[in-house]
Amino acid sequence: MSKLRIGLGVDFHQLVEGRDFWLGGVLVPHHQGALGHSDADVLLHAICDAMLGAAALGDIGTHFPDTDNAYKNIDSKILLAKTTELIAAKGYSVVNVDATLCLQAPKIKPYVPQMQSVIAKLIGVTEEEVSIKATTTEKLGFVGREEGVVAYASALLEKQ
Amino acid sequence: MSKLRIGLGVDFHQLVEGRDFWLGGVLVPHHQGALGHSDADVLLHAICDAMLGAAALGDIGTHFPDTDNAYKNIDSKILLAKTTELIAAKGYSVVNVDATLCLQAPKIKPYVPQMQSVIAKLIGVTEEEVSIKATTTEKLGFVGREEGVVAYASALLEKQ
Amino acid sequence: MSKLRIGLGVDFHQLVEGRDFWLGGVLVPHHQGALGHSDADVLLHAICDAMLGAAALGDIGTHFPDTDNAYKNIDSKILLAKTTELIAAKGYSVVNVDATLCLQAPKIKPYVPQMQSVIAKLIGVTEEEVSIKATTTEKLGFVGREEGVVAYASALLEKQ
Ligand SMILES: [Zn+2]
Ligand SMILES: [Zn+2]
Ligand SMILES: [Zn+2]
Repeated sequence: MSKLRIGLGVDFHQLVEGRDFWLGGVLVPHHQGALGHSDADVLLHAICDAMLGAAALGDIGTHFPDTDNAYKNIDSKILLAKTTELIAAKGYSVVNVDATLCLQAPKIKPYVPQMQSVIAKLIGVTEEEVSIKATTTEKLGFVGREEGVVAYASALLEKQ
Repeated sequence: MSKLRIGLGVDFHQLVEGRDFWLGGVLVPHHQGALGHSDADVLLHAICDAMLGAAALGDIGTHFPDTDNAYKNIDSKILLAKTTELIAAKGYSVVNVDATLCLQAPKIKPYVPQMQSVIAKLIGVTEEEVSIKATTTEKLGFVGREEGVVAYASALLEKQ
Repeated sequence: MSKLRIGLGVDFHQLVEGRDFWLGGVLVPHHQGALGHSDADVLLHAICDAMLGAAALGDIGTHFPDTDNAYKNIDSKILLAKTTELIAAKGYSVVNVDATLCLQAPKIKPYVPQMQSVIAKLIGVTEEEVSIKATTTEKLGFVGREEGVVAYASALLEKQ
């Protein structure tokens, strides 16, 4: 059987005034930020879930429950680093990750190279194996009304 | 060319009072259930679609039309078993499946091991090759208002 | 390391009266069409993004900005052909593509074989490597209210 495994992660957060807006491990200047128990980094959470799903290791809620004070306001980069350890303990490494952020504002293009760099280091690949894309929802739905943000991530893992 | 193929399935159902709530082949106790022509198991439908898509065999609506009385209230486990036969007839077997349920309530964590077991048997893999994840939408949109449920599934198939 | 890479694309467009409705490179007769700077072909855009993401080549907005008059009302088949050139220049070819259209109306099943044929030629594979699926959202959300359309695409690429 193939040594490859695929995973798909999806994450949602509300947008509110007066919160730092962490996306892909980078602080993005904006009048809103994502609400959550941790730093609410929707991109990193979707990537964690794609990696955990590909390795059949449960999900981000299993490993880092939002009812646990240990994860209160935690930097999601720590969660992604722990996720990388969890899949490595099961013999997996990342081949590539491709994520899409659905967000009406602001434009995140200027921050994408830094996000790729941060994520690549955390998951043990080069920046050529990390893709961050962004799209608005063309003003549709809760993303279009700037009430929330959604991220999708796909991950390809390989068993060593 | 690679013997691997990937697929992505998405499924939606309304939630209403007074219906059994089938998720991943398991009856989940809840005051609401999913509305549909079949048993409306959103997780199994997304997995069927991911598998059919990877094999370029159409979609769940092609093979099990909701206008056909043969599929009225049908157990979606039968549809997933038939999907496995359809891809096998084209020479494919499942490498792994990773699915995510977007649902505001109830918590489905306690039912995940049973879902994995049921699905693994139906698609001919071990429970290590089946991942079921769950997330709320943080009260956003129709899922957040408990009006509906969405499932995403990714499947990796291998040609024999 | 594996020569395979996966990508996931998502695209959104508003539906309005009095626009041609291009889907998967095919003109679909309908009283509404998708609004956008280009021909607003949501399926082809999601496929472009899945391919660009798998190759870590940015996204459709990077290569074909909607602020550039060169892409005003452009046929998205040209964008998909250019995307195929971009990934080829980086040494990648497509293994398979699986896309899902979320649309309340009209039924697109009759157009699927033509979409598969058009897309297969543009991305350099056979029709057996192109899957187009469709689902309604069961009247839920902006898709259910026929205000918009969403497409998801997954792509598997192979390095030569
Ligand atoms: Zn999150
Ligand atoms: Zn369904
Ligand atoms: Zn578009």
